[in-house]
Amino acid sequence: MRILVRGGLVVTAAEEMYADVLVEGERIAAVASPETAEGWLRGVDRVVDATGKYVVPGGVDVHTHMEMPFGGTVAADTFETGTRAAAFGGTTTIVDFAIQKVGGSLREGLDAWHAKADGKCAVDYGFHMILADVNDATLKEMDGLVGEGVTSFKMFMAYPGVFYSDDGRILRAMQRAAHNGALPMMHAENGIAIDVLIAQALAEGRTDPRVHGEVRKALLEAEATHRAIQLARVAGSPLYVVHVSAAEAVAEITQARDLGLDVFGETCPQYLFLSTDDLARPDFEGAKYVCSTPLRPAEHQAALWRGLRGNDLSVVSTDHCPFCFTGQKDLGRDDFSKIPNGLPGVENRMDLLHQAVVDGHISRRRWIELACAAPARMFGMYPRKGTIAPGADADLLVYDPAAKHTLSAATHHMNVDYSAYEGREVTGRADLVMSRGQAIVEGGRYFGRPGDGRYVERATCQYLNGG
Amino acid sequence: MRILVRGGLVVTAAEEMYADVLVEGERIAAVASPETAEGWLRGVDRVVDATGKYVVPGGVDVHTHMEMPFGGTVAADTFETGTRAAAFGGTTTIVDFAIQKVGGSLREGLDAWHAKADGKCAVDYGFHMILADVNDATLKEMDGLVGEGVTSFKMFMAYPGVFYSDDGRILRAMQRAAHNGALPMMHAENGIAIDVLIAQALAEGRTDPRVHGEVRKALLEAEATHRAIQLARVAGSPLYVVHVSAAEAVAEITQARDLGLDVFGETCPQYLFLSTDDLARPDFEGAKYVCSTPLRPAEHQAALWRGLRGNDLSVVSTDHCPFCFTGQKDLGRDDFSKIPNGLPGVENRMDLLHQAVVDGHISRRRWIELACAAPARMFGMYPRKGTIAPGADADLLVYDPAAKHTLSAATHHMNVDYSAYEGREVTGRADLVMSRGQAIVEGGRYFGRPGDGRYVERATCQYLNGG
Amino acid sequence: MRILVRGGLVVTAAEEMYADVLVEGERIAAVASPETAEGWLRGVDRVVDATGKYVVPGGVDVHTHMEMPFGGTVAADTFETGTRAAAFGGTTTIVDFAIQKVGGSLREGLDAWHAKADGKCAVDYGFHMILADVNDATLKEMDGLVGEGVTSFKMFMAYPGVFYSDDGRILRAMQRAAHNGALPMMHAENGIAIDVLIAQALAEGRTDPRVHGEVRKALLEAEATHRAIQLARVAGSPLYVVHVSAAEAVAEITQARDLGLDVFGETCPQYLFLSTDDLARPDFEGAKYVCSTPLRPAEHQAALWRGLRGNDLSVVSTDHCPFCFTGQKDLGRDDFSKIPNGLPGVENRMDLLHQAVVDGHISRRRWIELACAAPARMFGMYPRKGTIAPGADADLLVYDPAAKHTLSAATHHMNVDYSAYEGREVTGRADLVMSRGQAIVEGGRYFGRPGDGRYVERATCQYLNGG
Amino acid sequence: MRILVRGGLVVTAAEEMYADVLVEGERIAAVASPETAEGWLRGVDRVVDATGKYVVPGGVDVHTHMEMPFGGTVAADTFETGTRAAAFGGTTTIVDFAIQKVGGSLREGLDAWHAKADGKCAVDYGFHMILADVNDATLKEMDGLVGEGVTSFKMFMAYPGVFYSDDGRILRAMQRAAHNGALPMMHAENGIAIDVLIAQALAEGRTDPRVHGEVRKALLEAEATHRAIQLARVAGSPLYVVHVSAAEAVAEITQARDLGLDVFGETCPQYLFLSTDDLARPDFEGAKYVCSTPLRPAEHQAALWRGLRGNDLSVVSTDHCPFCFTGQKDLGRDDFSKIPNGLPGVENRMDLLHQAVVDGHISRRRWIELACAAPARMFGMYPRKGTIAPGADADLLVYDPAAKHTLSAATHHMNVDYSAYEGREVTGRADLVMSRGQAIVEGGRYFGRPGDGRYVERATCQYLNGG
Repeated sequence: MRILVRGGLVVTAAEEMYADVLVEGERIAAVASPETAEGWLRGVDRVVDATGKYVVPGGVDVHTHMEMPFGGTVAADTFETGTRAAAFGGTTTIVDFAIQKVGGSLREGLDAWHAKADGKCAVDYGFHMILADVNDATLKEMDGLVGEGVTSFKMFMAYPGVFYSDDGRILRAMQRAAHNGALPMMHAENGIAIDVLIAQALAEGRTDPRVHGEVRKALLEAEATHRAIQLARVAGSPLYVVHVSAAEAVAEITQARDLGLDVFGETCPQYLFLSTDDLARPDFEGAKYVCSTPLRPAEHQAALWRGLRGNDLSVVSTDHCPFCFTGQKDLGRDDFSKIPNGLPGVENRMDLLHQAVVDGHISRRRWIELACAAPARMFGMYPRKGTIAPGADADLLVYDPAAKHTLSAATHHMNVDYSAYEGREVTGRADLVMSRGQAIVEGGRYFGRPGDGRYVERATCQYLNGG
Repeated sequence: MRILVRGGLVVTAAEEMYADVLVEGERIAAVASPETAEGWLRGVDRVVDATGKYVVPGGVDVHTHMEMPFGGTVAADTFETGTRAAAFGGTTTIVDFAIQKVGGSLREGLDAWHAKADGKCAVDYGFHMILADVNDATLKEMDGLVGEGVTSFKMFMAYPGVFYSDDGRILRAMQRAAHNGALPMMHAENGIAIDVLIAQALAEGRTDPRVHGEVRKALLEAEATHRAIQLARVAGSPLYVVHVSAAEAVAEITQARDLGLDVFGETCPQYLFLSTDDLARPDFEGAKYVCSTPLRPAEHQAALWRGLRGNDLSVVSTDHCPFCFTGQKDLGRDDFSKIPNGLPGVENRMDLLHQAVVDGHISRRRWIELACAAPARMFGMYPRKGTIAPGADADLLVYDPAAKHTLSAATHHMNVDYSAYEGREVTGRADLVMSRGQAIVEGGRYFGRPGDGRYVERATCQYLNGG
Repeated sequence: MRILVRGGLVVTAAEEMYADVLVEGERIAAVASPETAEGWLRGVDRVVDATGKYVVPGGVDVHTHMEMPFGGTVAADTFETGTRAAAFGGTTTIVDFAIQKVGGSLREGLDAWHAKADGKCAVDYGFHMILADVNDATLKEMDGLVGEGVTSFKMFMAYPGVFYSDDGRILRAMQRAAHNGALPMMHAENGIAIDVLIAQALAEGRTDPRVHGEVRKALLEAEATHRAIQLARVAGSPLYVVHVSAAEAVAEITQARDLGLDVFGETCPQYLFLSTDDLARPDFEGAKYVCSTPLRPAEHQAALWRGLRGNDLSVVSTDHCPFCFTGQKDLGRDDFSKIPNGLPGVENRMDLLHQAVVDGHISRRRWIELACAAPARMFGMYPRKGTIAPGADADLLVYDPAAKHTLSAATHHMNVDYSAYEGREVTGRADLVMSRGQAIVEGGRYFGRPGDGRYVERATCQYLNGG
Repeated sequence: MRILVRGGLVVTAAEEMYADVLVEGERIAAVASPETAEGWLRGVDRVVDATGKYVVPGGVDVHTHMEMPFGGTVAADTFETGTRAAAFGGTTTIVDFAIQKVGGSLREGLDAWHAKADGKCAVDYGFHMILADVNDATLKEMDGLVGEGVTSFKMFMAYPGVFYSDDGRILRAMQRAAHNGALPMMHAENGIAIDVLIAQALAEGRTDPRVHGEVRKALLEAEATHRAIQLARVAGSPLYVVHVSAAEAVAEITQARDLGLDVFGETCPQYLFLSTDDLARPDFEGAKYVCSTPLRPAEHQAALWRGLRGNDLSVVSTDHCPFCFTGQKDLGRDDFSKIPNGLPGVENRMDLLHQAVVDGHISRRRWIELACAAPARMFGMYPRKGTIAPGADADLLVYDPAAKHTLSAATHHMNVDYSAYEGREVTGRADLVMSRGQAIVEGGRYFGRPGDGRYVERATCQYLNGG
């Protein structure tokens, strides 16, 4: 199967060029000037007209939680529904989090997640591993997992009694990562201190969702970020801080990067487009916006955008972890701390970031870098994923930069009963979504099947040592 | 003429891929996987075998001074000799500095430099303009020059009585730049203070070249850098600081960039590979290393490398400005302040930066970004220059990363009687240098003619506003 | 003459104690517990009852401009009227600025100021010297003046063509100060850049006093502050920055002090209590508030108070330089740049700073440190001035911390037709003002005579090298 | 009993003056000029000739551990021997640490320490309380203890399983302190991470005392310092960081103070005069220098001195906690982690800090501020302790600034078999030590008795809110 995508503006992290893209089978075969590609028209099976459109790499979302157990319930999107929604939104690769159980092995956790995903996914997928129980056995297992393409390991400074690792465990895992090349990922909030503030708030009868944002203080995100950085320095390891939301945390990362440390930051669209105003919505509507790190006052957004422009924040992922308002979020109707943490978003990321281009926050190239190239490179999938270049997987979008549409639970494909962006109009949408050469979404219709997506064995982080 | 460059590793600022490059006429026509390109073999005029080699964009050196009058003499390379040497070294585009005379118009200065370069150059060239006399008339002329592709204007906080502009003139030019889109470039040293220290040193009988480095203090470079940044903030303009050499100046730029300001820094190979130890060479040999900003103690190099890795320094140029040791440098034998300022280097930059890759300072992609892509983008020539992509000028190198050779005046092609790197062995060299599709250097021989190089009309800086 | 000041709370920079103070002749003879002092009652000539009052050192105002020529007019207070007003306000020592004329010698300038002050002053006085023309002869003269008690030399980075010194002159004077122990004082604003902005504003017809504040930008104060600090580092000299008004300038001083540099900052009550809102008063009333550095938006005040608490700002002086609204300020009715720069204040400082105690900005001890002890120590007059201790000059106040009164031109004693604080109620006032043992103000009446005040020969700065 | 101390230079934190000091009973009655005091000669019981000497306040050492149980042994100085040694060294007030047992009440701990000290002490003493078990009951008890003069509470981020408090307990105690006015004190080292490094070192057979310094990394002190500061910000409480030894920790405190936070730092003579070179002494001699925080490489000392000069470090205490080399330190001969942590020093502090005056690190006044006035004020004992002023306790030294002597276990009075400063010559020594009017040490002989020293009920910190 040979397809020629013709007439579009190809945008990658580095280039913008009017060029035609030749796809052969699952790979990109060539990128050529339109004049040169003219000669290929007869030899191809299909010509896609991209005139007036962008041709961009498929999105790479490196932070999703499909079917994740949390707080007595399970995230509402399965790998099937979640990856299909991703495809609709122009994301053609996800990296989800396999979870080690306390007392269990990494292997068991990884196997369980493979079992959930296998044969279900609409798009390609990889796994990070959540370390919930760092010990001698676990540390040994890490080396093996790196060898089979699980090259990043997440720990939590939050959630004592659940995923929480103390500083000693974190240090040991980082030391191991320094040795085996893995990338430590960190949920950086001082959960021990936060739990004190939660208990105090509840004792005072402050149970509303907005209190979730008040007790998870920006200073406690910044503190944990600083601490994780220092532990990584002691261990000699790199560090990737997930879902940065506070200006003060960005400042810590900026300071570390000024020192030349291999410290990287990720943020998510919810922190860029939503705020504590949403958490404060009446009638328990704020529960829809409960996630951790929490939404911040809108003033923090300027620091996040600046971080994204200046590369102190390197990646935008979604932390997609949807819970229905009815039946899930309402577990915490009388106690904000029982609201399952998480927002839906895997379908919205590419368009929201394109909206940021329209709004002047970032350039087109930076859009693709943040959403495709950098996450792929950060997690060892580049250039197979994240760019348009000969040899790369033919994961690409024909993207209409002028298409206006309105985000809504009524029209989205995520398996959740609300949209965090309900009613928000955005400009830009993928007309065609190609995954390894197959048009899986086109004209708003889905042409794929569960199992189209394959497991991606990842290399180690490609940004280390100035890479 | 159709040429297929086959079998190499194509390295650009963003990608590394085993791909073949098809050149048609003066432009790159396609980049393709080797399998796909296999089918093109019969249709091409020439196949260049790049197996085991890198295929990279031609170098872009945005800071040269050919035939520049300075201190009663003239830089030893003409546009003919200098650009030919550039070609030998793998640089296929230069941007030189046209000079306004005090009391003269920009037009006169630009015309004079066009006259020097026209019909002489081996590679493509553009011009920045040096503002030596900012006034109402000059400011108006700036707008016109931007329209004809001279989009960057250099001022000097050093050299009182020669090129020096006071802060008021600088502010006015920056305000104009904020309005017409031009990029202000700054030689940032507090020349007024330095001249006091020079006079004191000479009065004390301290005349040796090493004193040049002592009086041009790092703090006075940092001070001027800080001041230029603040003036740019007041004016609302971007700022490009040339030849940054002091760690303290890097820190000022880092701080500005952390604030999200459009402030950019350039450094040069001499600051990365040489030091005050060279300035202190006996028998007046130090004079060979007299340039401004001066070489610094070797400890500063770590800050420069870190700045380059972290993008607080964005460009590596040469500030090529050669004066012969005999007959020119010796004008200052009894008075270091009379030594013509400048070093030869246009031929050595690509190889020295590749050596930095070999030494582990930077990645391959960053090599190309610093030496090709970023300077092209900074000065409005991208993607025509600085990358390998369909539609770009076919300025490319087949670069042998394993070729060891020794830098020496005995073998270099610059018109100057010494090498700043005499005897230094480097690894890496261009086997073939192609300029707009024409192989001008191949196998160590020059196949071009004066006038091959064309004037490049430049757009404005392509990095502004997060671009 | 022996006087016992009995029953008050003695407050110095270091102590608060209920103690009695014995004055013998011009000096403080003893400080004793009330029980011990009980025994002295019979042996004294007078007992002052200070019950319920503070007994504090007389104020030391190290920045006044009596009879200063500026902009074609002369500051309205003579040494006679100005020092009498100072006395009314509880200030018993001033240090005024003698001015070198361009082309003239320091000696001539100092002699002229001695002539103005001699036999006129109500309180003791010293002189700083303004260097308007740094050259070889001037530099030599500096040494001599240090020897006769003029140990501080002010330069201007503002006012080109008037007092302005370029960076070379500043550097040379600082080098000399590093050698002779003098303290360089700096008016830190980039006057060259400001003059460009003034000319542009006037050309646009923006002539209102508020524009004075707009063109003298905070960034340009901060820039000059930074530059002065770097020049002092190069010279190896200390630095005292006068009338700091911008938060960004405080930040520069903080950064310097964090490095352990001998850099000191002074601010004035007008920057703590007034703002650009005053400059924007209608009907040309803003002219009353024109001074340089200018008043800033009220947000800057928090940084000034923080600087004062944390000792990044060490001294509060007045920069007293009064010009009448009618007949002087109105020289600039059609052109803000012609408004004479300066505010009256010498009478109000002690009470305004006590108000800051009442308002919780600073402690009582810090009040006395900022207003008495630190200025005395900074300029070589401690412990003769600035404290209450055996051997010190008996310059002291019996201060009623509960006395409410309203600041007004109708009641003040400064020779100027308006008050910058008209109508403001403050709490606290000196009941009795003693200068070298003589009660010169008591119960609101003046009992002194011109010539009571003597010239103070000052030592060098007592804060250097951690002193 | 009336004593006149005559002819000396009285040095306090604020003043240096040739003055005579009149003592009546236990208090200072007056400070007077020698001329005035002349008249008192007949009325006094004793005249102490201080000609050529300094008259300074008795030292205040706010960090001692007499008879402290640690690591299976007990600190070698009892309250009797330790306070007598303090007296010999010119220290007339100590504040020791009462310890709460895990599971026990504060009351029990405090009572136990009162029992140890009661009737034993040579000089006055107070208590801080170590919180080893923060819980609801403990928090309530805090309020009560503040009311009885125990106004400061120390917690440990080090020593997991012993004194360690997690961040939640720390936060709760700080919140309580914000409410009851207490001052939280912090041992800031990340003990959880350090314990990992200790275990790894031992597993590798690295058992030497020098390893103690290697595993307790400067970065982990700085991290904990930063964390404690952030927790205090969240709680709204002040913070006092004990025994700061790392340059990076000083930087954290500097940054906090630049923000205007009530954060204070203490260091100790061992960090100023000793280094990792001592820890590395052969034949297990390094064990003599094992304390936590550990000694650092000598390069850190410059940052400590700078911090002391610029007031980012406010207090110098000793952390006196002596263990004999034979019989105690050698518990860790095969395992550095078993070496009891602590150094003797209570007798040496005043002289070592005077040596710092001689060496030019600090001024005389700063010596007294750091060793007497600031600790007294920090812990609510000023002006009763820490200064020479009417009404203050007559704790004073006649100090001979020229007396050279050699520190040695052979001559010291501490109950420990080695001196950390063995053989070091210092200049300066107290000739006479007066405690509340009683000469307890004079001419090298002790004239006091156990029980002379009384318990000092302390007020809350006198530095808060700019005080």
